[in-house]
Amino acid sequence: MTTGDGKILEQVYFIGTGLMGGSLALDLKARGLVRNVAGYDIDPDAAEYALQHGILDEIIPPDSFSFDEADIVVLSLPVIRLRELLLDGFPDGTLVTDVGSVKLPLVNAYKESISAGKTYSYVPGHPIAGDEKSGPSAARKGLFEGARVILTPIAGKNDGTRTVTDMWEGVGSTVEIMDPEQHDEVYAWVSHLPHMMAYALVNAVNERESKWAEYSAGGLRDYTRIASSSPRMWADIAVVNKEYLLKALDGLGSSIESIRELIRSSDRDALEDMFKATLKARRKYK
Amino acid sequence: MTTGDGKILEQVYFIGTGLMGGSLALDLKARGLVRNVAGYDIDPDAAEYALQHGILDEIIPPDSFSFDEADIVVLSLPVIRLRELLLDGFPDGTLVTDVGSVKLPLVNAYKESISAGKTYSYVPGHPIAGDEKSGPSAARKGLFEGARVILTPIAGKNDGTRTVTDMWEGVGSTVEIMDPEQHDEVYAWVSHLPHMMAYALVNAVNERESKWAEYSAGGLRDYTRIASSSPRMWADIAVVNKEYLLKALDGLGSSIESIRELIRSSDRDALEDMFKATLKARRKYK
Repeated sequence: MTTGDGKILEQVYFIGTGLMGGSLALDLKARGLVRNVAGYDIDPDAAEYALQHGILDEIIPPDSFSFDEADIVVLSLPVIRLRELLLDGFPDGTLVTDVGSVKLPLVNAYKESISAGKTYSYVPGHPIAGDEKSGPSAARKGLFEGARVILTPIAGKNDGTRTVTDMWEGVGSTVEIMDPEQHDEVYAWVSHLPHMMAYALVNAVNERESKWAEYSAGGLRDYTRIASSSPRMWADIAVVNKEYLLKALDGLGSSIESIRELIRSSDRDALEDMFKATLKARRKYK
Repeated sequence: MTTGDGKILEQVYFIGTGLMGGSLALDLKARGLVRNVAGYDIDPDAAEYALQHGILDEIIPPDSFSFDEADIVVLSLPVIRLRELLLDGFPDGTLVTDVGSVKLPLVNAYKESISAGKTYSYVPGHPIAGDEKSGPSAARKGLFEGARVILTPIAGKNDGTRTVTDMWEGVGSTVEIMDPEQHDEVYAWVSHLPHMMAYALVNAVNERESKWAEYSAGGLRDYTRIASSSPRMWADIAVVNKEYLLKALDGLGSSIESIRELIRSSDRDALEDMFKATLKARRKYK
């Protein structure tokens, strides 16, 4: 376990106490990396749950919170809500980061806010962790241990990148820097596209005959797990990362068409070659 | 554990000693359901491995085997090879079953052989078990405990169905009877289609930028596991179950097109509704 530069934060403020924010708060506290964790959730039950389960030390709504007392403000919210908050902006000198799965639209919202005269700092973040569960009750210690966290600092505006990096390294993550455009394209392909496919497949089977799902062992069953992540979150991501996702869907469409043509022409040897190439690629990157 | 009617088999003969056949042989022996297990594999190393690891008691090639001494002959082979063997036929009175993932083309091969004057019995079987591994080294005890086994007995030709049912129930499986047509359509959707999709997705990402796969946590990583099953087996299945699989691919294509249209028109609420329906269906059938 690395603890970054070892500096202990006075206070971290969480807006949103779901799986990601809640798990980060738990680890920061468990590892003694912060003295006080304040936070807020638009859902009063979620906030109360977080308080009762030691995720938050206190609940403070954003309009009563003294932002100058927080070392870092962590936004753990759906990407559409994130964009709204970044557009509205934060008080001068606030250091804001987030855990959203899409980065470019958030960077753009931040830049717009800066152009309109705001002066807070934003270090866009995306921890590659989590599962199909959501909400504060899914929060757990150790979620980010060994995880990759992508940060996409903004050129000329990277104040706070060191502080946010230390926070993530402190909870055992490895920080990697990317351009927001590259991030959104990569994750359109390796995360957003696979989720869309899982929804498409499970829906297709449902439309044909929903009770057939019970016959699945491997195969469909793996997809239903992927497709059971938060519908709200994935609808947001699909729309917010629309441009890259539509391109990825085109790429997948070509690949499906190739397989379909090989099946139609009963070219089993070419199918086997294609499947072998897939297996080889998997061995390389698993 | 049920042991069927408790009758102990004198001899079972396996042609093919891979994951399915090997695991079944191990369980039949471990549970004392058979006195002798003979078998053969076209790959001498696989046969030798099976003999050394107690999967087989003896190796006997089919042309030296006395089929009248086997209570059941289990074919654990790729579907294309199964079709060839069933067309060639077996000696009078032999009871043959198999573990292939496609049934109608095998039933048709059997019927053709019967029309040509053969008189053996065939009880088509498909145990819903296994994983991405293959070969005798993947064989293990307990693979079929609690698994569903589909049998598709042939109208007017169901001699032996009771014997094969007892064998599967003896190793802890639940036997279900289906029409071969229904079996092949159901499994085109819940198994063959998902595997084709996994190959298509992983190939699409490889073609865009293969090193991106390393950024995947959930999402793509789940697919690469599905896509790592035996390329040879899946190429065979795709071609042999072509008719139903192409229809399933059409159904999936419509479903992808619906999602793509909703993304293109940024209709996040309709996307969320669609994803919620998927989640609901999963809860019902998991």
